[in-house]
Amino acid sequence: MIARYQRDIFKNIWSDQNKFDTYLKVELASSKAFHELGLIPKEDLEKLMKASFKLSDVERLEQETKHDIVAFTRAVSLSLGEEKKWFHYGLTSTDVVDTAYGVLFKEANEIIEQGLLTFMETLKSLALKYKNTPIMGRTHGMHADITSFGLKFALYYDEMNRNLERFKLARKQIEIGKISGAVGNFANIPPEIQHFVCKDLGIYEANISTQTLQRDRHAFYLQVLALIASTIEKIGVEVRHLSRTEVLEVQEGFSKTQKGSSAMPHKRNPIASENMAGIARVVRGYSLTAMENIALWHERDISHSSAERIIMPDATSLIDYMLTRYNKVLNELQVNDEKMLKNINLNHKVIYAQRVLHLLINKGLSREAAYDKVQSLSFYALSIESDFDIVLKQDKEIMRLVNLEEIDNCFTLDYYFKQVNTIYQNVGIYS
Amino acid sequence: MIARYQRDIFKNIWSDQNKFDTYLKVELASSKAFHELGLIPKEDLEKLMKASFKLSDVERLEQETKHDIVAFTRAVSLSLGEEKKWFHYGLTSTDVVDTAYGVLFKEANEIIEQGLLTFMETLKSLALKYKNTPIMGRTHGMHADITSFGLKFALYYDEMNRNLERFKLARKQIEIGKISGAVGNFANIPPEIQHFVCKDLGIYEANISTQTLQRDRHAFYLQVLALIASTIEKIGVEVRHLSRTEVLEVQEGFSKTQKGSSAMPHKRNPIASENMAGIARVVRGYSLTAMENIALWHERDISHSSAERIIMPDATSLIDYMLTRYNKVLNELQVNDEKMLKNINLNHKVIYAQRVLHLLINKGLSREAAYDKVQSLSFYALSIESDFDIVLKQDKEIMRLVNLEEIDNCFTLDYYFKQVNTIYQNVGIYS
Amino acid sequence: MIARYQRDIFKNIWSDQNKFDTYLKVELASSKAFHELGLIPKEDLEKLMKASFKLSDVERLEQETKHDIVAFTRAVSLSLGEEKKWFHYGLTSTDVVDTAYGVLFKEANEIIEQGLLTFMETLKSLALKYKNTPIMGRTHGMHADITSFGLKFALYYDEMNRNLERFKLARKQIEIGKISGAVGNFANIPPEIQHFVCKDLGIYEANISTQTLQRDRHAFYLQVLALIASTIEKIGVEVRHLSRTEVLEVQEGFSKTQKGSSAMPHKRNPIASENMAGIARVVRGYSLTAMENIALWHERDISHSSAERIIMPDATSLIDYMLTRYNKVLNELQVNDEKMLKNINLNHKVIYAQRVLHLLINKGLSREAAYDKVQSLSFYALSIESDFDIVLKQDKEIMRLVNLEEIDNCFTLDYYFKQVNTIYQNVGIYS
Amino acid sequence: MIARYQRDIFKNIWSDQNKFDTYLKVELASSKAFHELGLIPKEDLEKLMKASFKLSDVERLEQETKHDIVAFTRAVSLSLGEEKKWFHYGLTSTDVVDTAYGVLFKEANEIIEQGLLTFMETLKSLALKYKNTPIMGRTHGMHADITSFGLKFALYYDEMNRNLERFKLARKQIEIGKISGAVGNFANIPPEIQHFVCKDLGIYEANISTQTLQRDRHAFYLQVLALIASTIEKIGVEVRHLSRTEVLEVQEGFSKTQKGSSAMPHKRNPIASENMAGIARVVRGYSLTAMENIALWHERDISHSSAERIIMPDATSLIDYMLTRYNKVLNELQVNDEKMLKNINLNHKVIYAQRVLHLLINKGLSREAAYDKVQSLSFYALSIESDFDIVLKQDKEIMRLVNLEEIDNCFTLDYYFKQVNTIYQNVGIYS
Repeated sequence: MIARYQRDIFKNIWSDQNKFDTYLKVELASSKAFHELGLIPKEDLEKLMKASFKLSDVERLEQETKHDIVAFTRAVSLSLGEEKKWFHYGLTSTDVVDTAYGVLFKEANEIIEQGLLTFMETLKSLALKYKNTPIMGRTHGMHADITSFGLKFALYYDEMNRNLERFKLARKQIEIGKISGAVGNFANIPPEIQHFVCKDLGIYEANISTQTLQRDRHAFYLQVLALIASTIEKIGVEVRHLSRTEVLEVQEGFSKTQKGSSAMPHKRNPIASENMAGIARVVRGYSLTAMENIALWHERDISHSSAERIIMPDATSLIDYMLTRYNKVLNELQVNDEKMLKNINLNHKVIYAQRVLHLLINKGLSREAAYDKVQSLSFYALSIESDFDIVLKQDKEIMRLVNLEEIDNCFTLDYYFKQVNTIYQNVGIYS
Repeated sequence: MIARYQRDIFKNIWSDQNKFDTYLKVELASSKAFHELGLIPKEDLEKLMKASFKLSDVERLEQETKHDIVAFTRAVSLSLGEEKKWFHYGLTSTDVVDTAYGVLFKEANEIIEQGLLTFMETLKSLALKYKNTPIMGRTHGMHADITSFGLKFALYYDEMNRNLERFKLARKQIEIGKISGAVGNFANIPPEIQHFVCKDLGIYEANISTQTLQRDRHAFYLQVLALIASTIEKIGVEVRHLSRTEVLEVQEGFSKTQKGSSAMPHKRNPIASENMAGIARVVRGYSLTAMENIALWHERDISHSSAERIIMPDATSLIDYMLTRYNKVLNELQVNDEKMLKNINLNHKVIYAQRVLHLLINKGLSREAAYDKVQSLSFYALSIESDFDIVLKQDKEIMRLVNLEEIDNCFTLDYYFKQVNTIYQNVGIYS
Repeated sequence: MIARYQRDIFKNIWSDQNKFDTYLKVELASSKAFHELGLIPKEDLEKLMKASFKLSDVERLEQETKHDIVAFTRAVSLSLGEEKKWFHYGLTSTDVVDTAYGVLFKEANEIIEQGLLTFMETLKSLALKYKNTPIMGRTHGMHADITSFGLKFALYYDEMNRNLERFKLARKQIEIGKISGAVGNFANIPPEIQHFVCKDLGIYEANISTQTLQRDRHAFYLQVLALIASTIEKIGVEVRHLSRTEVLEVQEGFSKTQKGSSAMPHKRNPIASENMAGIARVVRGYSLTAMENIALWHERDISHSSAERIIMPDATSLIDYMLTRYNKVLNELQVNDEKMLKNINLNHKVIYAQRVLHLLINKGLSREAAYDKVQSLSFYALSIESDFDIVLKQDKEIMRLVNLEEIDNCFTLDYYFKQVNTIYQNVGIYS
Repeated sequence: MIARYQRDIFKNIWSDQNKFDTYLKVELASSKAFHELGLIPKEDLEKLMKASFKLSDVERLEQETKHDIVAFTRAVSLSLGEEKKWFHYGLTSTDVVDTAYGVLFKEANEIIEQGLLTFMETLKSLALKYKNTPIMGRTHGMHADITSFGLKFALYYDEMNRNLERFKLARKQIEIGKISGAVGNFANIPPEIQHFVCKDLGIYEANISTQTLQRDRHAFYLQVLALIASTIEKIGVEVRHLSRTEVLEVQEGFSKTQKGSSAMPHKRNPIASENMAGIARVVRGYSLTAMENIALWHERDISHSSAERIIMPDATSLIDYMLTRYNKVLNELQVNDEKMLKNINLNHKVIYAQRVLHLLINKGLSREAAYDKVQSLSFYALSIESDFDIVLKQDKEIMRLVNLEEIDNCFTLDYYFKQVNTIYQNVGIYS
């Protein structure tokens, strides 16, 4: 992972130092478990608990043995006396590796889940802040109907809530340990060890495993990360659309020392939002890689390993980066509610046509007739650049059916906000 | 979807007839709701409930209007009198389309979930049937350690159980209706209609929506289908490996009239298992398409629609096909337990080396020393094609440490099965 | 493939009838080849050339044998007498299947290549038509600098030209036959047969094969189709952006009987362009499926087959549909050059800032100083809603450096078109 | 990119130091070009050519300005006097960034292409070395027919040759520079500069561009890298299959200090081959990310940038790693031709059934009758564990049709090698 998109906290989680520290935790939890089962004597256990290693030793031995767990156990053995015979006792490499992964995922996930919650709090506060701010709702990029700007954030909040529910399920399935031996039958190590170790480390234990944990767990996890990334991208796409010169309803905040384009100093480009799209594409790509890792051969092959060394640190770091950076962007978002209003009225009020349509139907016109009437008058209003309510009031056919006040009632803003409270309650946002 | 991979029941679900029938259900549920709200008079409602359409009318009108909902409402109107003014009243096209999708997904999902449960029952019964059948556990394609053939199915059962849990969450998020108007603000239609309609149709209702339901729901759903496909592929990969000529521990069943390769009549190829791999690749591809559908513009763009017209019927039909076909393959699987035993003993019993390793460590050798000793003797046994236990018994250094019975105890089969009951209980399989 | 996105010509290419007709062509070409080699007597060959089959026979026999080639050969045998012993002589099923695929791809590719050329002609003519039409160039969705609308089409033309070059390479690698037997060693059939058959069918022959053609060929082909789809999507994204209400510089054509949104009759939504995006996502997904098909086992496994039965007809049909439909959209594109000009002048002419920046540098200001000056004055112009040239002319510091004419010279349109001819020549567009 | 999968030479290519060095090359080439055009005086140019920067300055300024090109130009300016006004003259950031990318790609590609050629040489030499080594050809994982082990490498050679052709096309399309300004219209910079700079740097120049090069180029390039990765994965899958305990026809080489599984010292796992599969999955994922980068908005958005910062260094480094590492694996491959022969004869010689089938057809039996006869006798031979030729000789019906010598002639090995020379010539391998 390049430094630019990785916070220090994730750099630390996925550092070699932390990896081997976690291996050591797993090994020692296993030693404790064997002690509980009466195998490792107390004095040996006490010595084992002081086991340590130098990263440089591990690196040197890995060069030599081409096997990181062998290198690690040998490096740790350098710090031990006779009791080293108990170190790694009964364990298969992957017992340590996959269980340690479970611990590392938990470290990462606690930060990511906190990031999600913070992000959702931001969405909630923006929903509340802009609850009564009118904005043009757009479909197909075209003006469709007026809505509340706050509703957009309520929508994202609800979507992120689904992501949270998925993430919680994924956590439960990936913060997992397994200490079941070379083919998962616990032939060489009793299930009590796995139980003790996982409890000691604060992670779940696998009901069943082969030499490894099954990779559907990791694929599901990465799929959920890809969904989180896609939701953030989606918010970013909205910001990008609303930022464009002709729309200009929102802008990303602009730090004082930041430079715009070297040649065009007057622009405030939504580069953070664009950045989110690019990163989301990377995470989506990773979700694919992870799916291909599922169909391992028999009781394991190691093909998933090289892929996971890349995509797991990268994907989690990127999600953390996205949540953190874009949370900041949202908090600093500059909102131009005057421009929103101006855009609402851009097209000579034909936007209110739907209400007129319903009025005409209520007045007895068939749906088709009303539809055709509204369509032709709205086209006419646009063609002569006159406001739609004026045009309506000048149309004899219309005026035979409705009165002026009824027309005016079709052109009010509060109409669009009458259910906003109800919606907010449905998604769980209360002021 | 090509007929070959689609069962009739799914052909029906995704037929135009059923689609428009479902649209009609949504429309009429909405009419009932408006009646409940006091808008549509009882007599009109009763007439509306007799609304019908001819598929040929819809098709003709769609050619003309290029808009399937407009075509549909007009086709239905042909069956109505004055009351047709209430038909589609207050609804936006997508209110109908997305809510109908929710109903169709429910129809599909009930069959798929039943398929999952049936598939899991098969896995469970195979787990029980082969609980005490020894097979070589393999890692990296190499013999690793002896295990229970039944454990493989218990493992798949546990994995499919995770898929089931994911699928249930996905169902909850996709069997959803929305009737909230053109931009989702309920400005033109009160929330009570959505509530009534969804309850009437037996689906969930969206907390919030834009013109459409948000497509993270569909992406998540397709990701879960891709996981189910990948798990089936994984089982198929195992069957393919175990079927290969040199291994020959299992074979797909072979119907009497079925022909093998035209040129080589003696082969029984695992073509159903290979077929599963190919289909899984298609479904994984669809999960990607669905993820790209998430970041729609503003309150909707219709880019997801063309993609979903293809991938949703295809993906659900393919999963149904996989579950149904491969369930049959598993039920007819021919298992050669004699060959399994023969393969276990293929390599002069060096497979028991791990137990000897532990014996030596227990006898006081350091891990490294024991490791090196076992490694050199196992290589030696293989090189002279003599059984490993014989070689051990002839080694003076070994015999200084252990006695003959202790060596024999390292070469028993029951050793590998002692925790199988416990594992089965952990995954919820009881005999 | 659903009918909606498949032209009849592609429905025919991928029909069962055409598939088996093509199988028959391959078989008979092979018979002719064996005759040339002196194996099949002339009179038998003449009878063979009259071989035929009923599709219904093939279907019935496939139900029975579960093997489409066996079913096909048996169905054809029904039309033959004694000479049927020569039918399918020496061939492995896949010799026929993969060679027939080569022929079908050629049929499809000739239409697709023609579609590409037609599409490129349209791009070229649009490039020429709008060569001198000024439009705002946008980066990050923001106004960047004025450019020629025609240049956009010249850019797409150049990109499509790259796609054409890729497509030609892909054609060469996929319009291929192989008749090399069960494992590709020509042990049972001499290479002359492959040579004769491929020449007879007008396709290339494989240098080497296993039982099948290698699937990197198909993956590459689908990747190129995915690129073509992505380019069309990209043009569609541009049209969608330029169509949006606030921009409104282009619109998709609107047929007279077509209906807009049922509730909002005044909108002209870019639904064809959105449609392209959705389909492109499907094709991208297929390219992934095809890549997973590459690593077949040994001399073949059949996992690619189920996937290809779906993705090959679908992907080629979809590309044909995209090229055909979007070519029509481009030809009917409504262009609003007045709105383009209006948008250029939207922001009080600060768009000309870059030229002022260069002027100031030419006048001796350091880059940084000029940059800061232009940035502050452009912000000022926007804040007071006054045109940038006016603001410049009122700034004493500026006027010390430049005269009025020099300022006016920074605000001309022809400046942006001076290299357009050169660019057109570079991409090969000549008026 | 993690160090484990990146050679130093690629670490250097993608280092910040080399990136900014290359930016400087582009800037200075541009200065030279402006001098050629008569704008920059000779003495200023001479001073400019001594421009330099400290990486630490760039990093510090990037923190401040959040813009790496602005940071870079300011850092370089620190080394310049008055002449700094000409530095970056007339350039847009992306002119520098994308052109520098073109140079970096060329650096990477020259190594990758050399890696491809070396890899192909290895394949060629293995093809020649094992040209006459019989091995069982397998389809569906089952014994199919005897073939030459060398043919496998000839097949890979031919496939890699296709990859090479694709790669050369991709190089031509990505080793590209563009200096066309903010929206690609050359309004602020004459086309001669681009021409001069690209020539000076030894890369191609774009016919047309926007602010950026179009990303179909990068997508195509990554697709080709994904194909190369998939081909290497495919070879690795073959090695893994042939390595499995029951087959044991090949083994990856095993360095003396390397450790196998900690618990099972006797295994030689094909971990490098598995490793290739994992990495190929990552690169395939990247190809997807790159395709999503194509549809940028208007004259550019920067969403591709974050993705490319990750995937471009990673993908190229991984391909280089794969080519280098797996070339070594292939060179050290241990081949067990005795086991190959043993496996050929594993199934009582029923593998020769196809030849018997043809013999019977040649003797006048109908295809169906011969097929049924051979099928039943081969099943019988297997069931009584007797060699197929013996069974044939004892069958009265058979012996009425053929003599003993004709049967024996169906069981010779040279039969399978008679066309190997021809095939080698077709793929361009000459001894």
